[in-house]
Amino acid sequence: MTQASSLSASLESVKNATPLVHCITNAVTIESCADAVLAIGGSPIMSDEPKDVEDIVSICGALVLNIGTLNERSIEGMKRAGRRAAELGLPIVLDPVGAGASALRTETASMLLDELPIALVKGNMSEVKALAGSAGATKGVDVNPEDIVTEDAVESAAAFAQAFAAKAGCAVAITGPVDIVADQARAFAVYNGTPLQGCITGCGCVLAAMCGAYAACADDLLESALAAVVHMGLAGEMAEGALAAGEGTGMFRVRLMDALSLMDSDSLVEGARVKEVVVCR
Amino acid sequence: MTQASSLSASLESVKNATPLVHCITNAVTIESCADAVLAIGGSPIMSDEPKDVEDIVSICGALVLNIGTLNERSIEGMKRAGRRAAELGLPIVLDPVGAGASALRTETASMLLDELPIALVKGNMSEVKALAGSAGATKGVDVNPEDIVTEDAVESAAAFAQAFAAKAGCAVAITGPVDIVADQARAFAVYNGTPLQGCITGCGCVLAAMCGAYAACADDLLESALAAVVHMGLAGEMAEGALAAGEGTGMFRVRLMDALSLMDSDSLVEGARVKEVVVCR
Amino acid sequence: MTQASSLSASLESVKNATPLVHCITNAVTIESCADAVLAIGGSPIMSDEPKDVEDIVSICGALVLNIGTLNERSIEGMKRAGRRAAELGLPIVLDPVGAGASALRTETASMLLDELPIALVKGNMSEVKALAGSAGATKGVDVNPEDIVTEDAVESAAAFAQAFAAKAGCAVAITGPVDIVADQARAFAVYNGTPLQGCITGCGCVLAAMCGAYAACADDLLESALAAVVHMGLAGEMAEGALAAGEGTGMFRVRLMDALSLMDSDSLVEGARVKEVVVCR
Repeated sequence: MTQASSLSASLESVKNATPLVHCITNAVTIESCADAVLAIGGSPIMSDEPKDVEDIVSICGALVLNIGTLNERSIEGMKRAGRRAAELGLPIVLDPVGAGASALRTETASMLLDELPIALVKGNMSEVKALAGSAGATKGVDVNPEDIVTEDAVESAAAFAQAFAAKAGCAVAITGPVDIVADQARAFAVYNGTPLQGCITGCGCVLAAMCGAYAACADDLLESALAAVVHMGLAGEMAEGALAAGEGTGMFRVRLMDALSLMDSDSLVEGARVKEVVVCR
Repeated sequence: MTQASSLSASLESVKNATPLVHCITNAVTIESCADAVLAIGGSPIMSDEPKDVEDIVSICGALVLNIGTLNERSIEGMKRAGRRAAELGLPIVLDPVGAGASALRTETASMLLDELPIALVKGNMSEVKALAGSAGATKGVDVNPEDIVTEDAVESAAAFAQAFAAKAGCAVAITGPVDIVADQARAFAVYNGTPLQGCITGCGCVLAAMCGAYAACADDLLESALAAVVHMGLAGEMAEGALAAGEGTGMFRVRLMDALSLMDSDSLVEGARVKEVVVCR
Repeated sequence: MTQASSLSASLESVKNATPLVHCITNAVTIESCADAVLAIGGSPIMSDEPKDVEDIVSICGALVLNIGTLNERSIEGMKRAGRRAAELGLPIVLDPVGAGASALRTETASMLLDELPIALVKGNMSEVKALAGSAGATKGVDVNPEDIVTEDAVESAAAFAQAFAAKAGCAVAITGPVDIVADQARAFAVYNGTPLQGCITGCGCVLAAMCGAYAACADDLLESALAAVVHMGLAGEMAEGALAAGEGTGMFRVRLMDALSLMDSDSLVEGARVKEVVVCR
């Protein structure tokens, strides 16, 4: 499939299938995650109680695990939901929020990656490095400035992503000014997006939830993750373009959700700025 | 009282009384629920810690129990708050989110309905059927498509609602394209609303919280629930009408809260599309 | 420093330093708190798990403790984070939401004030009175009407605030139609703000989170708190001014975040309506 038809098909499959997505996510951005899954055509269900999660995940098409405000209950919920999802063959997306910022976060993310058949890790470079065991320090839940993927660093970032993907046995989406989406066989750089996405909370969490909806319908997991990353970045650009003078981050949040919900496959294909990166080994 | 004057009086009583509403609700839509209670003239207070809830409910005019992200702590909090509310004679609204989707949700909602003097159950048809013991499967937190109440099914839905109300000893509001509000003596169909309400998360939760504010001031609980359902549906229509070209679900959420907050009793009466349904037994 | 240059310097220091602010806050307004910290130039991180908080606070510049939906886990998290913050010399902001409304809230807020070197208490008059041990009853999470600080009561409120500050060994920001910001040496009355801030949930929580960002960069804690209070009140006025006909509390929330994010030091200085209050003792 050409890249354009793949992007288009991925979005159409979400809209047609209305996949149920089980999110065990943080308390900060949980409403935005639910709204985003609805906006793109899926149906979210949130549950982190260990006694509830196995039933819930059993009726869903994908599971999203986000450790942004992890606690003992939610960690246990993630394990149980993850094991059941594995039994059912459902794709699992891991968002290791703040891995590298605390021992509990690094250890929990690593444990989930080790014990569950994670399909996709979505994080910033500091978080993914922490998972890869090569981390310096994560700056809170934001990327460490020296880890930011800029245009100059695309090839080295893609090489890192592919090595991580090969070792972890999953796909990876590393977000930043340039996003890298890779598995061990292929790597893409996504140039969509706006710095305003870093001026509101939750764009990373929302993307992970969207990746869950896309993964639930995916023929090809890497291509579905690529479509989700383009969908978010392009929506960010459209939201920024829709801001009037005197509007700030409050309205940007509104326009971003508008753009997520209004995206159609033609817009996605036309707006996508994606390059395949061939890593020399 | 005629229906128009009842709607008007219900809204005015909320605006005049500024009722405190204790909500034990889910983490997804908790901010929207609080904002909505404020928007319509009430004052929300959220607390689910078992050691806190008895004091809190004691200063409130109504209690709302929503199991959307239930956990062991919040279930215990619901029980204790509910028992104290019962002692105080406060109306209790139950929103059985996802009943039918997991054993824990079905059992918890049933336990609350059995053990507490619930005044009003607010749910979609799948959830209420699950509570009634006649459920098939709930599709996540959304209604099962075959359970959706459409115009053709109004009379049978009203008959079901009245039977449920009689058995459970409470009023019931079943939301859908047509909403049914009933107790064992009377049933109403509400034709207000827009499908966009299903494109953002939390309209059901918000309605339950609003029902709490209305119930706190109610002379007649059924009429107060009817007013709340009309208030929400009409606000949805007004929000949809306020959308400009190129606006999506982000702005719909904003306009819905605008409309909830700006609703006055004249608008409520003029916009209401309510029919009493006489069920032949 | 003159007051104008102090306001300006406080805001600039936040924008330049991008302080990490650890918030242990309630589930209702947690996303708004995170967005507000980002909007004014800081970087929020939310964590309430006792096993996580010590690592997290260690990389932050300030700690904000908000008891709005306290529970056993979060209380333990607040204690551990607070003790570590104290060891590190970080400023701690306490928002005693609902103190006076339940025994658990009053006791927890008092315990935190007693055991930790709180730098700033931010609350409404009923909450601060509850902490001072002179409370009547708090009306839920809102101020008791008889406690509201109006223009007539500024001097007595300032005297109360200074006495509280002296006894508690911290600064205090008491919000209301007129806000009082005081330590034992000085007191200021802030006349910025709009009643609309009481029509959406979370303006108090958001202000506490902002105080954390300001405190993290403060040369003078009282002046930083004053700047935060002016920033919020002035943003409220700007948001109200930006509302078009037919817009309600939904859009007010959006415009408030816009105004928080767009505030620059010139606007802050020009719009500030602050008077020093000299309390006769």
